[in-house]
Amino acid sequence: MGDNNFILISSQQMLERFTSILLTIGFAKERADQCAAIFTANSIDGIYTHGVNRFPRFVQYIKDGYVLPGAIPSLKNKFGAIEQWDGNLGPGPLNAVHVTKKVMNLAQQHGIGCVALANTNHWMRGGTYGWQAAKEGFVFIGWTNTTAIMPTWGAIDARLGNNPLVFALPYKEEAIVLDMAMSQFSYGAMELAVFKKENLSVDGGYNNAGKLTSDAAAILESKRPLPVGYWKGAGLSLLLDILATVLSAGLSTHEITTKDVEYCLSQVFIAIDISKLGNHSLIAKTVEGIIDNYHQSVPEDESKKIRYPGERVLITREINLAGGIPVVKKVWEQILEL
Amino acid sequence: MGDNNFILISSQQMLERFTSILLTIGFAKERADQCAAIFTANSIDGIYTHGVNRFPRFVQYIKDGYVLPGAIPSLKNKFGAIEQWDGNLGPGPLNAVHVTKKVMNLAQQHGIGCVALANTNHWMRGGTYGWQAAKEGFVFIGWTNTTAIMPTWGAIDARLGNNPLVFALPYKEEAIVLDMAMSQFSYGAMELAVFKKENLSVDGGYNNAGKLTSDAAAILESKRPLPVGYWKGAGLSLLLDILATVLSAGLSTHEITTKDVEYCLSQVFIAIDISKLGNHSLIAKTVEGIIDNYHQSVPEDESKKIRYPGERVLITREINLAGGIPVVKKVWEQILEL
Repeated sequence: MGDNNFILISSQQMLERFTSILLTIGFAKERADQCAAIFTANSIDGIYTHGVNRFPRFVQYIKDGYVLPGAIPSLKNKFGAIEQWDGNLGPGPLNAVHVTKKVMNLAQQHGIGCVALANTNHWMRGGTYGWQAAKEGFVFIGWTNTTAIMPTWGAIDARLGNNPLVFALPYKEEAIVLDMAMSQFSYGAMELAVFKKENLSVDGGYNNAGKLTSDAAAILESKRPLPVGYWKGAGLSLLLDILATVLSAGLSTHEITTKDVEYCLSQVFIAIDISKLGNHSLIAKTVEGIIDNYHQSVPEDESKKIRYPGERVLITREINLAGGIPVVKKVWEQILEL
Repeated sequence: MGDNNFILISSQQMLERFTSILLTIGFAKERADQCAAIFTANSIDGIYTHGVNRFPRFVQYIKDGYVLPGAIPSLKNKFGAIEQWDGNLGPGPLNAVHVTKKVMNLAQQHGIGCVALANTNHWMRGGTYGWQAAKEGFVFIGWTNTTAIMPTWGAIDARLGNNPLVFALPYKEEAIVLDMAMSQFSYGAMELAVFKKENLSVDGGYNNAGKLTSDAAAILESKRPLPVGYWKGAGLSLLLDILATVLSAGLSTHEITTKDVEYCLSQVFIAIDISKLGNHSLIAKTVEGIIDNYHQSVPEDESKKIRYPGERVLITREINLAGGIPVVKKVWEQILEL
């Protein structure tokens, strides 16, 4: 990155800085380490919006009392392979890592498990828990609800959450991880496009005249971002919210939206222990066969390789581990002042 | 329907006609009744593409030996709450109804259950099994793989399946059912638009010049329909295929695509028994609260009511039950000749 707006920070330096800040705002040592490691790993993987860029807001929510650094999840209800947990407003990433371990235990016992988590906070990057489970050999399906950020199909007022959905499974030594929000572009991505004076790659929402547009500034003004697949993603967002709310007995998007800030979310974690279904090397071979075929896709632009979800992350990870994580200078200065 | 191309057929008449045809091609009485009922119910609900319009092709596949009318699924493998079944190339809808019952049993025992089904056939409308499970009080998540019908994002050759995904849950006396394919428009919908000389409501794919277009004829020519949400639906389609294949130990989209016709599919059925998680009336009230808020959405066009997934089906169902099912005359003539 030859860009003057960026500075390269080593992963070690970032990890230490995050840890030391968390220690000053009420985190015990082990939890500070774990939480700092998640924010750093998200940054190493190139998910800056849910890594380094988000860290100052995470700290602010702790200082404001929305997120309780010492709170840990507690079991509310259990039947067989399903469990309801209360996140007790603890840090979203720590809560999510905690219940991902629990759901893997359930899957080991029952083949499949489901943990629903109420009263938790933003889990940052959903893919974190997909990678966590997949690296241990599990299939993972999970989602979260969020505050309302977009109108449903045919409407103009925001009542649907972004409600990211994660599907993951083991692949070679790593994982295939799909981590998709229900809006075509996040507000972060649209703000970046405005900053860079670029159009979005495809239509991302409506302008104030009700026309589909790729002009991010116009969408930020109308507050009408587009659900993925128009009516389809709108429906999926609604169902994900309903299921997260019902399964966890937590708050739904419309209830979260009445709060001052986005907190007190509901999440679902499902794991399947595929080792119970057959030979590991046979399963690995099957997935390789599918990916090999997928990679044979004829690209429209010959210079662009066709990649599976999560594949690009591995490249970014390698680059950032070797050369440092590119951080917006202003963001790093802000972090140094925390 | 004042359209001369359509004829109104009562549900009873359709059911009897379908049953009598199935009896002539190797179905035992009970299975003919059940299969005819599914095709009729799909037509009553307005899903004509996977009801009456599809029936002649279903019969042809039986006659051609791709679908075996007497075959029933057999259990291959089991661990706790997960089961692998072999569909033995039986009729897709009967296989799917069969394992939906099995997965509900698993959910009753374990809270959640997962059945993966290999070597089955087209399940017609995925929503059928969502309604089936939801009407019995279960949350349902299920999907199927298909033959390849669209390129992945950035590619020009079809390697991804349509891979419909279903989410359903009980609602009042009925259900909320999302049944979404991974292409923005099905080939059926695009053919209909060409027939009606209408543009698609939004861009549905690329023309031969590689430009996004709402001209269905151009997309049918390029064979480049668009995944929902561009790169996002492409990723989701891939993951659904991988998981269906791995969990069922069945065939994947790339293997199905090498066959003469679309058969020998892999499917996943997950059910959750929400009655195990809390009070029925409290859960019902929670869902009602979410839907009430959703219905308060401000529509862009005041004459158009905002509806949840599955809501329109109830209206169509009532109209078609009362006044008869509108069937394309040529289709009905074809059915009368079977």
